[in-house]
Amino acid sequence: LSETLPFGVISTPNEAPRCAVLLGDDALDLAALQDAGHLRFTPPFATTSLNAFLAMPRSVWVEVRDELESLVGSEAAVAALVSLADCTVHTPFAVGDYIDFFSSREHAENLGRMFRPDSEPLLPNWLHMPVGYHGRSSTVVASGTPVRRPVGQLPEFGPTQALDIELELGFVIGGSENGHGDPVPIEDAAERIFGVVLLNDWSARDIQRFEYQPLGPFLGKSFATSISPWVVPLGALEAQRVDGPAQDPPPLPYLAEPEPRNLDIDLEIELNGEVISRTNASRLYWSAAQQLAHAASGGAVIRAGDLHGTGTISGAAPDQCGSLIEIGLGRFLEDGDEVVMRGSAGAMSLGEVRGTIEPAKNAG
Amino acid sequence: LSETLPFGVISTPNEAPRCAVLLGDDALDLAALQDAGHLRFTPPFATTSLNAFLAMPRSVWVEVRDELESLVGSEAAVAALVSLADCTVHTPFAVGDYIDFFSSREHAENLGRMFRPDSEPLLPNWLHMPVGYHGRSSTVVASGTPVRRPVGQLPEFGPTQALDIELELGFVIGGSENGHGDPVPIEDAAERIFGVVLLNDWSARDIQRFEYQPLGPFLGKSFATSISPWVVPLGALEAQRVDGPAQDPPPLPYLAEPEPRNLDIDLEIELNGEVISRTNASRLYWSAAQQLAHAASGGAVIRAGDLHGTGTISGAAPDQCGSLIEIGLGRFLEDGDEVVMRGSAGAMSLGEVRGTIEPAKNAG
Repeated sequence: LSETLPFGVISTPNEAPRCAVLLGDDALDLAALQDAGHLRFTPPFATTSLNAFLAMPRSVWVEVRDELESLVGSEAAVAALVSLADCTVHTPFAVGDYIDFFSSREHAENLGRMFRPDSEPLLPNWLHMPVGYHGRSSTVVASGTPVRRPVGQLPEFGPTQALDIELELGFVIGGSENGHGDPVPIEDAAERIFGVVLLNDWSARDIQRFEYQPLGPFLGKSFATSISPWVVPLGALEAQRVDGPAQDPPPLPYLAEPEPRNLDIDLEIELNGEVISRTNASRLYWSAAQQLAHAASGGAVIRAGDLHGTGTISGAAPDQCGSLIEIGLGRFLEDGDEVVMRGSAGAMSLGEVRGTIEPAKNAG
Repeated sequence: LSETLPFGVISTPNEAPRCAVLLGDDALDLAALQDAGHLRFTPPFATTSLNAFLAMPRSVWVEVRDELESLVGSEAAVAALVSLADCTVHTPFAVGDYIDFFSSREHAENLGRMFRPDSEPLLPNWLHMPVGYHGRSSTVVASGTPVRRPVGQLPEFGPTQALDIELELGFVIGGSENGHGDPVPIEDAAERIFGVVLLNDWSARDIQRFEYQPLGPFLGKSFATSISPWVVPLGALEAQRVDGPAQDPPPLPYLAEPEPRNLDIDLEIELNGEVISRTNASRLYWSAAQQLAHAASGGAVIRAGDLHGTGTISGAAPDQCGSLIEIGLGRFLEDGDEVVMRGSAGAMSLGEVRGTIEPAKNAG
């Protein structure tokens, strides 16, 4: 993971939260490095979130990464290292708007077959746009945060009996804000994407099933969304660029993106220490840039700190799927279960997102 | 409106945004009043949003209102007045999570009859919970902000041909945050609601119709949501409390609220100077406290600055409805149209939310 120079936010018992970069078993304290005069570029790193850095243009992200690469191993950098063992690692940015997309064709078809067995698995809009909805920002939490089993109307009121996971990538948005009413052209969309995290969109299928008509998922999804705490800059993943699956019908001009539009990232899900699924992000139908251009196409302001989930990433076979209902183990999550999702690109790790289920607090 | 001592945020050419209270044709500058030592309670008012004040407990809201009432007309208050003519009035708070509910039974039934003429107008969940979804926070704007006609897939790409309005109340949330995983009991929910604004949930029906299956409204709603800029504290509306319509089946315990649960607020919509609808908020089926308790029931953190829309407020007759498709004028909004929504409670005004349609920027 370190080789990507991923950005996060740490604190120690004696020091307030500040921005850092992961380096092996240490965190490189960017505020300390800045204080000591070792950073030419001076985004505000002595803050509790990456948002101010994210709000800078891509050119600054590139220069800061270049500078950090040249500093690694220097006396100045060594002086600014903090052992991870002494740190709390925080949610790395304040989430603005969180959109969860539905960009894996295999996942959309799998769920379509389950929920609407007598009709076409894909709805009429799916091949024409990255379908998505707004999720809840206040419950995006860092890896390791325990997840309390939610209660709700199943339709009888009680703890969910169908607690599921969704394996996703989360794209972290930054750059200069588009004006209200101005779209983000597809050729500029990639410039707005700072980096990527692993994302587990915890889902209570029974709550979701009863509540979601006609306005979409709400409490079945809004109790917790876990992300890996170290944001891997897209700048570190240039070698992972690959063509996505062919798009037919061809996307409308505002969504037409030159290849390679996808990322070759291997993903796996571990449940209580056993790998239950392996898949790859390269098969996503809609790319991160297409998702962003679509979200902005009507003129919505896209802000630094926005989070765009891909939706569950699934392959054709059950053990390549990103949710328990698709994998088909015949069970949902039980109290005490631990789920870990990991990503890698060749020898390079993208980190992990981890969570353990706590019993419901209110049995109804 | 002034008699409610509504809170907002103003700036002048010489002074940065800060919190204020409306007093006739003036704004009472709370930061100036505080600076001059005239406020015993000292929430941070020299800031660009009401959020820090909203985050305080209800007891502080009450004490600050009491103190302001006693100061009105004093020399100290007169010295802190700024003419509205010299002010810019801003969006009064930074929106955390914005939830749009669907709490008017008449509206839900009207739309059910239109979209599903052959089945029951209400879906099976509607009488059991306040149905809602997360909307977009980044495009909540203050009254007067022009609204650009959005473009999108209708399904052919172009400017919406079905631009509509939705008359709502928006409840502004504050108070001490519930912990992640902890619900807000219904008896505490009202304590978390600071005040109310008028809200126009601009909607592009053609974009919405093509995109919304299966995840709910997205771009058809996320291009703009306008609110009145002066938040009327619920403390000013105690005399407007009225019983809501009977609820059958009775709500589950987590939603069971003693009467009077609703607010008797007259509402009207003016299109280009002509009143096209008059209705009243007292007929809402689900109350603000029920909405909040439901949103928190699965353990989602409810933050100061969250905004809860009621959904379109409609009556039985077309000219008591809150959206153009229900009012049935045979037209949607045209470029240059101006919509004003107003609220009042007896002789007391709740202010207005106003917006004018600008032509689309990108014809596709």
